[in-house]
Amino acid sequence: MKRASYAQRGPVPQDLIEAVSCAVPALAAGQALIEVLAAPINPSDVLTITGQYGVLPPLPAIGGNEGVGRVAALGPGTAGPPVGQTVLLPVGCGSWSTHVVAEAKRLMPLPNDADPKQLAMMTVNPPTALLMLREFVDLQAGDWVIQNAANSGVGSYLMQIAASRGLKTVNIVRRDTAVAGVQAEGGDVVLVDGDHLAKRVAEATGGAKVRLGIDAVGGAATDRLASCLAEGGVLVNYGMMSGEPCQVSPANFVFRDVTLRGFWLAKWFRSATPAQQMEVFGDIAQRIASGALHTRIAATFTVDEIKQAVALAAAGERDGKVLIVP
Amino acid sequence: MKRASYAQRGPVPQDLIEAVSCAVPALAAGQALIEVLAAPINPSDVLTITGQYGVLPPLPAIGGNEGVGRVAALGPGTAGPPVGQTVLLPVGCGSWSTHVVAEAKRLMPLPNDADPKQLAMMTVNPPTALLMLREFVDLQAGDWVIQNAANSGVGSYLMQIAASRGLKTVNIVRRDTAVAGVQAEGGDVVLVDGDHLAKRVAEATGGAKVRLGIDAVGGAATDRLASCLAEGGVLVNYGMMSGEPCQVSPANFVFRDVTLRGFWLAKWFRSATPAQQMEVFGDIAQRIASGALHTRIAATFTVDEIKQAVALAAAGERDGKVLIVP
Repeated sequence: MKRASYAQRGPVPQDLIEAVSCAVPALAAGQALIEVLAAPINPSDVLTITGQYGVLPPLPAIGGNEGVGRVAALGPGTAGPPVGQTVLLPVGCGSWSTHVVAEAKRLMPLPNDADPKQLAMMTVNPPTALLMLREFVDLQAGDWVIQNAANSGVGSYLMQIAASRGLKTVNIVRRDTAVAGVQAEGGDVVLVDGDHLAKRVAEATGGAKVRLGIDAVGGAATDRLASCLAEGGVLVNYGMMSGEPCQVSPANFVFRDVTLRGFWLAKWFRSATPAQQMEVFGDIAQRIASGALHTRIAATFTVDEIKQAVALAAAGERDGKVLIVP
Repeated sequence: MKRASYAQRGPVPQDLIEAVSCAVPALAAGQALIEVLAAPINPSDVLTITGQYGVLPPLPAIGGNEGVGRVAALGPGTAGPPVGQTVLLPVGCGSWSTHVVAEAKRLMPLPNDADPKQLAMMTVNPPTALLMLREFVDLQAGDWVIQNAANSGVGSYLMQIAASRGLKTVNIVRRDTAVAGVQAEGGDVVLVDGDHLAKRVAEATGGAKVRLGIDAVGGAATDRLASCLAEGGVLVNYGMMSGEPCQVSPANFVFRDVTLRGFWLAKWFRSATPAQQMEVFGDIAQRIASGALHTRIAATFTVDEIKQAVALAAAGERDGKVLIVP
C-alpha cells in the first residue's frame, strides 16, 4: 500500500509531502482494511501541511482528512459492513492512501451505486455550507445570501443547498473567467469582486436586504462583503484564501451593526450531539447519492502523483476540486 | 455670542473650523438661552468634521455635540429650569459656543454644585463605557475585561465603572508614557500594546478567561486584543484611532469562535426607550456629581481658541480630554 506522508511543516506543501510504500498490516479483531476509492484535497488540508490550521497532527503525518473506500477485508471475528461495501472513511484517517485500516464499527455505509468521487467530498464542504446557511441567521424562502469564493467547493454546495431552500444567492468570484462556471451552476447573481461592490449588488438584487454574508477570502474582501449587508446583518468567515486577516471597517460594524462571526466545522463536531451529526450527514449523503448535490472536479491524481496534486490544490486558480483517486 | 463653525469637511479639521460672532437671537415662547459652561471635543466630533462619522450634519455646521450650561434667560411665558440652573445641553446642539438656544422643556437639570467640566462629558463617553460593559456579555463580579485605548475618555470611565461592579480590567495603551496615568486611575493590569500581548496578558492575570474585549484602535490592534480573549469571547469595537479598519485573523474567530461586534451610542439612543435612557443618564449623573466618576482634562480653551483646541484633540498624544470652556 502507498500513503502520502510528510515529516515537516512549511510554506511549500508539495515540497514536503511524498508517496511512501509500506506493507499492508495484519488486521486485529475489530479492524477493517479499506481500499480507498477517492479522497479530496481541501484548503484545510493544505493549511494543515503549512502549519496554519487550527489543529495540527503530530509529525510525521499522513495527508487527507476525508474520503470514501470499499471494504477489502475484515479482521478475525469482526462484525461490520461486508467486504465490497462502499463506506465513508473516518474523518482524519489519512485518506491520501491506497488503503486505510480503521475500526469497523466506525464505518458508515454509503450507497454502492453512487459516484464515489462525489461521496468522497461529503464530510467537510457540504456540512460547512449547510450549517453556515442555518446556524447564524433565520433565513426564509425568498431571502438573499451573499458569498465570496463562490467557485470554491463550499461555494458550490452553498449555492445548491440555498436554491433547494428557496434562498437566492449573490455569488462573488475573484476573476472574470470564473463567472460562467458559477452561472452554469445556478447562481442567481454572479459578480466579480472589486470597487463599488455594494452598489453593484444592490442593482443586481433590486436593493434586497441581504442579512447573511459568507466570507472565505479575508483581507479587504471581508469589508467589501460587509458593506453589501443590510444593517444588523451577520458576516460569517470560514477561510482566508487571500492569506490575509479579515478587515472590517468600523463604519460597517459600528455604524451599521454588522456582526462578524467565524465558522469551524471541527468545533461544530465537538459540540453537536450524535443525533445532530447523523441528521446532517444523512441529509447530505441522500442529496449526493440522488445527484441533487455535486461539485466540479478539476483533476484526479494517484497517490504516486501527490506532489502534483497538492501543488495544483494549493495554487488557487483552478476550476473545481483536486481528488486523489488511487 | 460666539460659535465654532465650519462650512466644509476635510482631513485637517483645525483648518476648517473657526470662531464666528453673531447676535444673541430674541427668544420665542418655549425657548431658553443657555450660557455654555463647558463642552468637550470627542473623537466623534473630529470625525464629524473630517466626514468619517456615521451621521453628518448639513453644512455649514456648529461643532460640538454635548456640554453643560446655565440658564441665562427664558422666552416669554416659558416654563422650564429657572435662570441660573445648571442644565445638560441637548445632544447635537452645537455646544462649542458661548451661548446656545434650546427648547426649555428638553433641558435636563443638573446639580449646581457639581463640577461643570466633569458633567459636560456625561452624555457620550460614560454611557458608551457603561453600555459596552453590560450589553454584550453577562459579566459577574471577579470577571476580567480587556480594553485598549485605556487612557482615552471612554477607557477611563470604563475602568471606573468596571471597578464599581467588581470587574477587573486589563488596560492596553499604545505608549510607555501613558502607563502611569492609567495605573493611577486604578487599572488592575496596564500593558503597552505590541508583540506577545496574549502571553503577557495571561501572565498578568494568572491565565484568567477574558470574555469581553473593547477595541477603539482598529488595525492590527484589534487582532492582538482578539487573541487575548477566551474561546467564545466577544470583541466590541467602537472606534478607529489607528485610522485603519479592524483586522482579525480567521485563527481567532474561526478556530476560537470570537465574535466581533460594534457599538454605537447613537444607535442605542434610537432603540432605547425613554425610561432606559433616563436610567442610564440618572446613574451617570449621580456618579459624576458624587465624584465617583471623573476623567482627566488635558487642557481647556475658549471658543476663540477653537483651532488650537481641535488641533490638540485631533493629535492623539495627550493626557485627557480637551474642553471648550467659554
